[in-house]
Amino acid sequence: MRFDGRQENELRPIHIETSYLMHPEGSVLITVGDTKVICTASIEDRVPPFMRNQGKGWITAEYAMLPRATGTRNIRESSKGKVSGRTMEIQRLIGRALRAVVNLESIGERTIWIDCDVIQADGGTRTASITGAYVAMVQALHKLQVNRSISKFPVHDFLAATSVGILENGKTVLDLNYVEDSAAQVDMNVVMTGNGEFVELQGTGEESTFSYNQLNEMLKSAQEGLMELFEHQKAALGDDVVKLITATKKGKSK
Amino acid sequence: MRFDGRQENELRPIHIETSYLMHPEGSVLITVGDTKVICTASIEDRVPPFMRNQGKGWITAEYAMLPRATGTRNIRESSKGKVSGRTMEIQRLIGRALRAVVNLESIGERTIWIDCDVIQADGGTRTASITGAYVAMVQALHKLQVNRSISKFPVHDFLAATSVGILENGKTVLDLNYVEDSAAQVDMNVVMTGNGEFVELQGTGEESTFSYNQLNEMLKSAQEGLMELFEHQKAALGDDVVKLITATKKGKSK
Amino acid sequence: MRFDGRQENELRPIHIETSYLMHPEGSVLITVGDTKVICTASIEDRVPPFMRNQGKGWITAEYAMLPRATGTRNIRESSKGKVSGRTMEIQRLIGRALRAVVNLESIGERTIWIDCDVIQADGGTRTASITGAYVAMVQALHKLQVNRSISKFPVHDFLAATSVGILENGKTVLDLNYVEDSAAQVDMNVVMTGNGEFVELQGTGEESTFSYNQLNEMLKSAQEGLMELFEHQKAALGDDVVKLITATKKGKSK
Amino acid sequence: MRFDGRQENELRPIHIETSYLMHPEGSVLITVGDTKVICTASIEDRVPPFMRNQGKGWITAEYAMLPRATGTRNIRESSKGKVSGRTMEIQRLIGRALRAVVNLESIGERTIWIDCDVIQADGGTRTASITGAYVAMVQALHKLQVNRSISKFPVHDFLAATSVGILENGKTVLDLNYVEDSAAQVDMNVVMTGNGEFVELQGTGEESTFSYNQLNEMLKSAQEGLMELFEHQKAALGDDVVKLITATKKGKSK
Amino acid sequence: MRFDGRQENELRPIHIETSYLMHPEGSVLITVGDTKVICTASIEDRVPPFMRNQGKGWITAEYAMLPRATGTRNIRESSKGKVSGRTMEIQRLIGRALRAVVNLESIGERTIWIDCDVIQADGGTRTASITGAYVAMVQALHKLQVNRSISKFPVHDFLAATSVGILENGKTVLDLNYVEDSAAQVDMNVVMTGNGEFVELQGTGEESTFSYNQLNEMLKSAQEGLMELFEHQKAALGDDVVKLITATKKGKSK
Amino acid sequence: MRFDGRQENELRPIHIETSYLMHPEGSVLITVGDTKVICTASIEDRVPPFMRNQGKGWITAEYAMLPRATGTRNIRESSKGKVSGRTMEIQRLIGRALRAVVNLESIGERTIWIDCDVIQADGGTRTASITGAYVAMVQALHKLQVNRSISKFPVHDFLAATSVGILENGKTVLDLNYVEDSAAQVDMNVVMTGNGEFVELQGTGEESTFSYNQLNEMLKSAQEGLMELFEHQKAALGDDVVKLITATKKGKSK
Repeated sequence: MRFDGRQENELRPIHIETSYLMHPEGSVLITVGDTKVICTASIEDRVPPFMRNQGKGWITAEYAMLPRATGTRNIRESSKGKVSGRTMEIQRLIGRALRAVVNLESIGERTIWIDCDVIQADGGTRTASITGAYVAMVQALHKLQVNRSISKFPVHDFLAATSVGILENGKTVLDLNYVEDSAAQVDMNVVMTGNGEFVELQGTGEESTFSYNQLNEMLKSAQEGLMELFEHQKAALGDDVVKLITATKKGKSK
Repeated sequence: MRFDGRQENELRPIHIETSYLMHPEGSVLITVGDTKVICTASIEDRVPPFMRNQGKGWITAEYAMLPRATGTRNIRESSKGKVSGRTMEIQRLIGRALRAVVNLESIGERTIWIDCDVIQADGGTRTASITGAYVAMVQALHKLQVNRSISKFPVHDFLAATSVGILENGKTVLDLNYVEDSAAQVDMNVVMTGNGEFVELQGTGEESTFSYNQLNEMLKSAQEGLMELFEHQKAALGDDVVKLITATKKGKSK
Repeated sequence: MRFDGRQENELRPIHIETSYLMHPEGSVLITVGDTKVICTASIEDRVPPFMRNQGKGWITAEYAMLPRATGTRNIRESSKGKVSGRTMEIQRLIGRALRAVVNLESIGERTIWIDCDVIQADGGTRTASITGAYVAMVQALHKLQVNRSISKFPVHDFLAATSVGILENGKTVLDLNYVEDSAAQVDMNVVMTGNGEFVELQGTGEESTFSYNQLNEMLKSAQEGLMELFEHQKAALGDDVVKLITATKKGKSK
Repeated sequence: MRFDGRQENELRPIHIETSYLMHPEGSVLITVGDTKVICTASIEDRVPPFMRNQGKGWITAEYAMLPRATGTRNIRESSKGKVSGRTMEIQRLIGRALRAVVNLESIGERTIWIDCDVIQADGGTRTASITGAYVAMVQALHKLQVNRSISKFPVHDFLAATSVGILENGKTVLDLNYVEDSAAQVDMNVVMTGNGEFVELQGTGEESTFSYNQLNEMLKSAQEGLMELFEHQKAALGDDVVKLITATKKGKSK
Repeated sequence: MRFDGRQENELRPIHIETSYLMHPEGSVLITVGDTKVICTASIEDRVPPFMRNQGKGWITAEYAMLPRATGTRNIRESSKGKVSGRTMEIQRLIGRALRAVVNLESIGERTIWIDCDVIQADGGTRTASITGAYVAMVQALHKLQVNRSISKFPVHDFLAATSVGILENGKTVLDLNYVEDSAAQVDMNVVMTGNGEFVELQGTGEESTFSYNQLNEMLKSAQEGLMELFEHQKAALGDDVVKLITATKKGKSK
Repeated sequence: MRFDGRQENELRPIHIETSYLMHPEGSVLITVGDTKVICTASIEDRVPPFMRNQGKGWITAEYAMLPRATGTRNIRESSKGKVSGRTMEIQRLIGRALRAVVNLESIGERTIWIDCDVIQADGGTRTASITGAYVAMVQALHKLQVNRSISKFPVHDFLAATSVGILENGKTVLDLNYVEDSAAQVDMNVVMTGNGEFVELQGTGEESTFSYNQLNEMLKSAQEGLMELFEHQKAALGDDVVKLITATKKGKSK
């Protein structure tokens, strides 16, 4: 039994509230245990300079925490005048992950801006951000399709992320909260598509190492958790959108 | 009748949700019409260098908007690497306003950090921030009192803020939303204490001017709105805390 | 009697030296007591991006202090690599105030850059800046008219600013110097047009508050001081320019 | 056969030149094919503030490229005034990896600064940096031991890194050069200890995904390459130092 | 005959107004032709970290131009958020030059901050800054002596600077104004002590070169101009201070 | 005899390795005693904004040190987020010096980017940078000529730099190393063309001064050293390129 009463391979309670804000094209409040992230998707009708005139779109992400999302107050990155390495790493990860399941040609020369703002943090903020951002992004792209701004639906698979790790006692556990994460020997983030393929795998020994067998055990646990997360995403998106994605996937694999 | 059906001297619907987040000593989600601000109060057990060894505390505020709090996405100030003049003006205003109703000696050498993060904007974000931040701050200071970290309750009055303005049609209106604010000839922010004294008055003609009579009309409308806002704050704070403030006020005026 | 021998409603000695520098289109050294500010107006033949193709001009201001304008040396904002909140607040105020008396359509797609550089500070630097910058701006715009670069004179009213406040002894005083300002309970800056309308009103209780009656007393004192400041501006500008402004004002009010 | 004539599981030629510079405590020029990195290790007799008074040391890394290490000139990060997300990600990775094989208690309150400066880039600069930095660090720590500044040798295992990926043609290849890396579907960096345990695993689908079988194939290829890299490191370090590390490892596992 | 009617070896009219501002310990408005610079000297009772506990003082300088000191408006360095290379070069030069004639031991652990703010520029701003800053610094140090804060007068020689150059027509001219400077083939700044020794010599061919004979001709012209500048400095400083410097010089050379 | 056994007018051993890196159009590793600098020349097919549409090219330089090029580690300028005054001074000097021997019209609207990265420092890094950068630049421009991108060879003279100084013992020495430079009373950098004309002369008394006779002695020593440096450059460039430069020089002087 874990600190908070969960089984080793048990996710924390998930809730995904869609259309959370009035202005963005897509917006979600995702709750994973005590971690809460506002994810929005904004559509801009142009691409960054390095992408121009290629007939393709772009997806980019930004991530931040409210100063008091955590137990002690963090100095705002705007006050410090620079973005930390950790923040940059996370926003690059989110953008890269989402791009793996979107046909960038189908969205035309548009940029999808993803903003993940953590309003309360209890571990797993980057994986919650990916899982929530996916839903916000799909809603924004669906709106483009409904408005007939694009002709082919660009999302060809589901995408979610979770963490898995090895605790000090050697146990492999799923979806670490802050207390577990702080003390874990190994921490691994897994981003996966709906058909069970890896998009991103980041395993890190924290002043520690892990063996091939431990890797396999972690991957198995992560995969089970991710299958559950896909169900939450599908419920949040609704049947019509789920069918669109499934159809795009089939169209692609032919 | 106004754009959104309100009377000229009618506030938008207000809601103040206290203890909104798990980590901060005080936290509030304040909703004023479609404007939503998360206000937190964090207590740090030291003061900035320029205040040291004076036996007094300090209150300082930071303000930000989520990139997609508005109709079009704003670039994050952390990405730009600097805080805009507008942001600085607002955070200086919030801090100054709150300090007017707190006995800084009574909080000892502590800093109260106020964070106002606008998650959805529809005009009046700075006044909503002050009104919400006051409640978050009182809760944090009340916790200090309950923990016996301080001996005298330091808040000696209520404090709220609203805006008032003159529209293009010459009408004086209370609590302008974004559409009204964009087109107003005059925009005035009024910060007032529970006993009807001014803390801050900022009236600005937007490529326009205003007469002494118009000033008086605006002040009258603002005062009525503020009296209503105090009732919402009192309801949110609860009777015990309201009594504490009232008692501190009496003690001070003797 | 005040610290420096003045009556409560008495301004400090004023001097406005025009054409102070050889390069700028308009330039003034304004002296208000021991406060000295160099105000220049520069004309650029284009507007900032957000104003383009609207057939209108723009007026923007920058404000700075020499490091040793004050009793102790301040670190240069260029060395710190950022502009302080106080500086930003002041430069936004100066620009906004000047725009209230200029017909931006009449100046075409040009930017008037106002620079206010305080070379010696003894309180009231922001109000002296506005009063001096108005004169420098009018001279620069007059040159445009003389050169036939514009056809209609764009300045339709006079504009000046002063401060008023409530001292620790409860007295309302006009035009506070540094010693008075540091200890004042209430500090109010008033920007007014030649016909007695408010452009900007910023009243602040410094860990203090003020009543409606005190507000009225302050406004009365400010207005008297401003009437005197307009006479200094008129003397500095000369009869021909004064007539031009008066004529523009009449043309506008018809 | 690959672009440059290598077999799929063949590393590029490796050369590690030790004591490359006169000033640093440890310094290496590592050459991996056409990729050349200068790695230095500097010892500072204090730790960063967050580590003080814990009786432990710290290892931190910085990474940069000369502007013309690449085919087109990159703007210097010092000129841009900020460090890119990619750079931050890499320097965090290098530091984390090295800390996994060092007993931080044994180095006392010292910081080992690792600097990896790429003077010529042809893919795999981050893995070459780790492999080279390990050698520079070991030499610097060995010097500390020789000087009797530390009593227990702190390095308890070997450490090297390589990349492995899946090309557009579906082939799994080891040690990708720039041309291969640019077009690869999957790119994975593997950091491993001398006894075959993972320290870090970062696999990324580039607008693509990878299956569990592909993961296993990549890991196998990486492991073979890493075994070869350990031999190069051992040759560069010399027998005495290799024995010290082996002895520390045995001491630890008891 | 030159553009402005001067002889080749003729300085522009010089004026040095001392005690120009009320706050600084020393302050000067120096006018060299149409170039005007406010030079102030401020005394701080500590030295920068790298100088601590050596029983010596430090002299450092900052230099800036008002945005409209020149024919077209320059963007403020505080707005750009960084100081240009040209500015840094000049402020390093001013500080280095002044340190050459001051006995740093005699001023104790104090910093003399020199600020040179160009309010009007017409060539030669860096040399006018040095010449004016010397006078402001001497006055500030004299005040320290008068207050008995220091026991030995620290300034042991006079110091002034001028420019000399070779025009397009091949003529060697003294004290170039902006028009001459812009077109000159060679530009040389010479900083000299009262007894004719060089402190700093900076000669630059502007897409051009100069011979040994031309160098000698320039140095001769510069020396004559500098002798005249020393007379202006002496007149500004007054006999008593001049005697102090002369006495310190003699004391040193023994 | 000097610290390292050299005669007073003796240069340190020089080595210039050309084509040191694979990517840049020109690249050199220059070794002067223990000072080692990588100099590269990159050609960009456009000029900075202030140079556009003038039919001329531009040459600009950047200079940096690896953190551990020196005895103690320096913080990277990219981490500090700004470039030091010393760095700016040096890069301005390098660019200016190179422009003196190149016909900018002949290179068309191209920018030659010079990068000088010091990998090991033992005094004289700026002069070694100029001497090495000249060779890298010539090679890059020669490549342009060979590719027929330009029709006239633009380099019309040789260019090298060295330092000369006066030690504490009053001796004039050539090519100071770090130990000598740190203690020297006077330090002078001389940049000269192949025909013995000065391009740049920067002499600085370090809290000291120098006489006209000392200046002459230093210039004589510098010139002798520079003649030797030109021979090293010629050997590195090869006969064909040397002839091209000589021919361009003759063509120009006609």
